[in-house]
Amino acid sequence: MNLNDQSLLLHEKWKGKIETTSKCSVNSKEDLALAYTPGVAEPCKVINKNPDAAYRYTIKSNTVAVVSDGSAVLGLGNIGPLAAMPVMEGKAVLFKEFAGVNAFPICLDTQDTEEIIKTIVNIAPAFGGINLEDIAAPRCFEIEERLKELLNIPVFHDDQHGTAIVVLAGVINSLKVTGKQKENCKVVVNGAGSAGIAIAKLLLNYGFTDVTLCDKTGILSKSAPDLNWMQRQMMEVTNLPGKQGTLADALKGTDIFIGVSAPNILTKEMVASMNNDSILFAMANPVPEIMPDLAKEAGAKVVGTGRSDFPNQVNNVLAFPGIFKGALEGRAAQITEEMKLAAAQAIAGLIDDSELNADNIMPQPFDPRVCNAVCNAVKSHISE
Amino acid sequence: MNLNDQSLLLHEKWKGKIETTSKCSVNSKEDLALAYTPGVAEPCKVINKNPDAAYRYTIKSNTVAVVSDGSAVLGLGNIGPLAAMPVMEGKAVLFKEFAGVNAFPICLDTQDTEEIIKTIVNIAPAFGGINLEDIAAPRCFEIEERLKELLNIPVFHDDQHGTAIVVLAGVINSLKVTGKQKENCKVVVNGAGSAGIAIAKLLLNYGFTDVTLCDKTGILSKSAPDLNWMQRQMMEVTNLPGKQGTLADALKGTDIFIGVSAPNILTKEMVASMNNDSILFAMANPVPEIMPDLAKEAGAKVVGTGRSDFPNQVNNVLAFPGIFKGALEGRAAQITEEMKLAAAQAIAGLIDDSELNADNIMPQPFDPRVCNAVCNAVKSHISE
Repeated sequence: MNLNDQSLLLHEKWKGKIETTSKCSVNSKEDLALAYTPGVAEPCKVINKNPDAAYRYTIKSNTVAVVSDGSAVLGLGNIGPLAAMPVMEGKAVLFKEFAGVNAFPICLDTQDTEEIIKTIVNIAPAFGGINLEDIAAPRCFEIEERLKELLNIPVFHDDQHGTAIVVLAGVINSLKVTGKQKENCKVVVNGAGSAGIAIAKLLLNYGFTDVTLCDKTGILSKSAPDLNWMQRQMMEVTNLPGKQGTLADALKGTDIFIGVSAPNILTKEMVASMNNDSILFAMANPVPEIMPDLAKEAGAKVVGTGRSDFPNQVNNVLAFPGIFKGALEGRAAQITEEMKLAAAQAIAGLIDDSELNADNIMPQPFDPRVCNAVCNAVKSHISE
Repeated sequence: MNLNDQSLLLHEKWKGKIETTSKCSVNSKEDLALAYTPGVAEPCKVINKNPDAAYRYTIKSNTVAVVSDGSAVLGLGNIGPLAAMPVMEGKAVLFKEFAGVNAFPICLDTQDTEEIIKTIVNIAPAFGGINLEDIAAPRCFEIEERLKELLNIPVFHDDQHGTAIVVLAGVINSLKVTGKQKENCKVVVNGAGSAGIAIAKLLLNYGFTDVTLCDKTGILSKSAPDLNWMQRQMMEVTNLPGKQGTLADALKGTDIFIGVSAPNILTKEMVASMNNDSILFAMANPVPEIMPDLAKEAGAKVVGTGRSDFPNQVNNVLAFPGIFKGALEGRAAQITEEMKLAAAQAIAGLIDDSELNADNIMPQPFDPRVCNAVCNAVKSHISE
């Protein structure tokens, strides 16, 4: 049986990949009086006097909402909230299994920015954090920014920042392998949606200075038509010379290509036009922008993809479980840029210099050290 | 240690009375490929083509939202969403332990009717049912009515209908014990909020004809000032003679008193003024409208309260777990009046005639037959 049929059968067997389970027994009147009425009134009263006590007496301290409007799900596109459920449940499974964090899928029956924001604010009391997922750009940027202002719990759009953190981890180790310096590297990011823009931002914050964004229309520059507000904002910090042209034009003489775009759009010729020992993250799924063997034939030194059957898999599960574990344990009000940079460095740091090589720049998703390394990196950047 | 201190300590130990747990293992790349990407795309695609398949592949088939705005929590009043959390978590525990139904607390950071409705509609996709809880009257009536129109999943305000169902079950068996006929009984319901009004409605639907609502101002009649829209609507079907006066006036020559009001407001004299073999449900918590021994001294035949340490406890846990279990298993689009009546009769029917007496009109909350009896009663009234 192929993977898809097998997955479908299993989903039918599971009828939901998560369940809510009770941490307290209710087998007697006495149990009931403690977990429910009348005893339950006591923690209610304490929280009513001191809202912060919700972290002491309720699920808020260790529970995340996985929120999507179903508008940009995997490679499937705008399939809506119901069809997004299996993905959000899967994410909830990963939160629990990788980080011990409770997570519940909230799939929204609206794709209106204001309604999404309002709804998330309204349901926030039960949650210690909000993981936004698979929300289309540029809506996702505004939703995240506004929620960060409105809520005092961490809000994190994983498609943006989870991806950016893991890519940066891979880039950090790729620099070591190739001996390149971030200050001297030219970077092309192909795909100017949520992931591409977040990657470009985080690379700039890490210290890269020459980043160019491309999308299916070619190089994005200030003079490009139809930029959305976030892309326009990015033009203040990327492609400062104002280059124009195709992706092929953009790649000539550059060091790093990061693709969050479409299958097979990169040719060997394009890779060959890059500087020596180029670094490629070709993350289109399931078929990357260029297959790793072709890229290497054309001169690439390090190639990462989104796939588990090639070396150097860029997998968000390396980041988000530890990010939220750390933020929740440390009661962070926000996930800051410093935390994201520290998380990327922590992930990269798990590959010892003695093990580091072009086909081993990234820890494995099931490496049990990853979650705590990221968690501790986040916690070390929480200001009191 | 007293109950309150013990409950507080336990709540601190639990740090949340529920958790989300995974039904599928993710211990290998193969697991991950089935429960998450790329395999998860398959159920997403199927649901995208046929929304109904969400019931086959996701938690929707067996998951309820326990939604409150924290405006009328237990006897504590308007303590807000955060302080309501321990109660909603407790309710979620009861759903799972008594009926095997997953439930998640949604505590809303708004008390605006329109925003509450909008928010619940927006988060509905993940859920197979909505249990409204501890929302103040008359807001609760409009919220429930509107949601029933807007959603195609069951919406059930437990403070109203759960209470009404269990009271009716007790009344049904009380009639047997006293030999009274519903057609000839005069009923007084004291308390004209969510529970009182729902009880009055369900008694009328069951076949009682003479019901009078009272509140702290006395008898409610058409000419009473300050009735809310729902109370005004109730004046079309209750107190048809248009009586006025105090609760004491209302009680003279009546057969049944149902109190969802305040401690100790009923005197022995008031009970003595009722007809012989009167039936009292004095459900103010924790101190009832009159203590059972006093009521009996004054001539009452059957006395029920909300407390587990007296006979005949009216406990919502007899109803809501089975109600939702039946509605979810049968894919009911609504909880209808017929289902509520059938549920009350099913609960009452669990007390065999041979066991029935004035101090044993209600099954015990932990009677394992209750949930399935209610579940089957609900399912038998689902139209195809």
